[in-house]
Amino acid sequence: MNEFELIARLTKSLPTNESVVVGAGDDCAVLDLGVPEKLVLFKTDAVVEGVHFTREMPPEKIGRKALARCLSDIAAMAGTPTAALVTIALPKDFDAEFVAKIYDGLNALAEKCGVAIVGGETTTNPESILISIALLGTVPRGKQIFRSGAKVGDAIFVTGELGGSLAGKHLDFEPRLDEARWLAEHFHIHALMDLSDGLGGDLRHILSASKVGAQILKSAVPIARAAKLAARENASAKPPFIAALTDGEDFELLFTLSSKSAVKLVDAWKKKFPEVKLSCIGKIVAGEGILIRDKIGTHTFNAHGYVHFP
Amino acid sequence: MNEFELIARLTKSLPTNESVVVGAGDDCAVLDLGVPEKLVLFKTDAVVEGVHFTREMPPEKIGRKALARCLSDIAAMAGTPTAALVTIALPKDFDAEFVAKIYDGLNALAEKCGVAIVGGETTTNPESILISIALLGTVPRGKQIFRSGAKVGDAIFVTGELGGSLAGKHLDFEPRLDEARWLAEHFHIHALMDLSDGLGGDLRHILSASKVGAQILKSAVPIARAAKLAARENASAKPPFIAALTDGEDFELLFTLSSKSAVKLVDAWKKKFPEVKLSCIGKIVAGEGILIRDKIGTHTFNAHGYVHFP
Repeated sequence: MNEFELIARLTKSLPTNESVVVGAGDDCAVLDLGVPEKLVLFKTDAVVEGVHFTREMPPEKIGRKALARCLSDIAAMAGTPTAALVTIALPKDFDAEFVAKIYDGLNALAEKCGVAIVGGETTTNPESILISIALLGTVPRGKQIFRSGAKVGDAIFVTGELGGSLAGKHLDFEPRLDEARWLAEHFHIHALMDLSDGLGGDLRHILSASKVGAQILKSAVPIARAAKLAARENASAKPPFIAALTDGEDFELLFTLSSKSAVKLVDAWKKKFPEVKLSCIGKIVAGEGILIRDKIGTHTFNAHGYVHFP
Repeated sequence: MNEFELIARLTKSLPTNESVVVGAGDDCAVLDLGVPEKLVLFKTDAVVEGVHFTREMPPEKIGRKALARCLSDIAAMAGTPTAALVTIALPKDFDAEFVAKIYDGLNALAEKCGVAIVGGETTTNPESILISIALLGTVPRGKQIFRSGAKVGDAIFVTGELGGSLAGKHLDFEPRLDEARWLAEHFHIHALMDLSDGLGGDLRHILSASKVGAQILKSAVPIARAAKLAARENASAKPPFIAALTDGEDFELLFTLSSKSAVKLVDAWKKKFPEVKLSCIGKIVAGEGILIRDKIGTHTFNAHGYVHFP
């Protein structure tokens, strides 16, 4: 059994009950707990030393990142975060001052976003620090946005710039909570998610959930300066466009809406969020998978992240 | 900064908001999300290989235990569990079959208790398997029971038998969900919690939260057969009574109610739960800390778990 087979087995026929609106498979689980006008969002996310951070990074930023990743998932449902539990697993030799600073960074972001920290635990982990966040949020009934609603002809948008996040942004990014709520309030967004594994991989989740394909205009993809710099400074780095499609941890919003609403959206967005870039990067098409259009023609972009030039 | 100072610092002045009924410090966080007749319970708990289980144990029982511990915390608030997220951190060399069986055990208990498994994630942990459960539940408004309500003169009760859990019970215990809900429905329980760190330590949480002391009758404490056997077979094992007070992972209920209701409770309990032992082990007294009464007299039981015979 390989990892993909394992995940398929683990998520097959999970126990369910009448509270479940959406279980595994979207950015958050969605539950109906009987709040008259709201559904409840439920999400966990873990960061592990050596995988998502190192002890050389500022501890406040590590704590901030742990919570911000989870907040980004609430944003991906156009929700509002409410309360979090923090589990931190520590090696026996842990530096208490370092751990206290992790919480300082986490608490500061929680405070800023109106999230209550309502407990959690410290436990032992033999080798490395692991921080797991469990987060609750809410979304007005009828305003939740899933990955599965993309329609042929939709325009595809991303916020911000993509690629090169590990150069620094992964510790500093702003979860797009305000932007996502504003989108849900003012436009009929068909599909929404946050970018955590790279546009090329994440867009595929919208496409398969919605049973459609996408055509991406290469020149329209907003490439982060960090990705361009990396390519300039290091000949073995990914070309910037490939970095923008395959680097992880962008934590930007990816969404689709009817192309008829695209111009109105761009105008309204510029007024509301003048400092956050918004790019229309392509359109939803019939079929499946991702096509990349450039000056030469149209190329398929395969599941492993490489563009096949014919 | 030592571990206690760290925890004191971490739980001091946590970010809060208007949804928080009870934050850190009780068995679960309690939130008011606007469900008309219910409050929401929120809890996380992690088990770590080498600390809470080993790879020599049956994987189904490891998964079962991970969820059962969290369910016991919902029971400790007299609540009903609703939905869980499962985070499993795995070393690179993990055995997929072993992991699948962990989920099988977890899912079987979830099914039995009506809990939906609504997602989670697998992530990397360098050395050991770590399973973290985030659990949501509900409790009817007004029926939640905290640790802080014990009153002088209350009778103190425990379910089941205490001590020696690591000989096997820690993998098999039944979370006392039905029992706790029944107690909350039929009696005015003043304080309730589940026993995870041993009666001697856990009772202290009720006492300090309620600003009272306790007198425990040594002969009334129900000692598990496993604790007696261990003492008989191994001269260096804890004496059975000390094991009952200081062994962890009993996952029984500890609660107090007015001594006037004690006899009525015992009679009703025997009819309702004939197979679950219920023991009145002492009473709440003015002051602080734990006194142990035996044939010789009264002894203090200190914070480190040793009985001081004067």
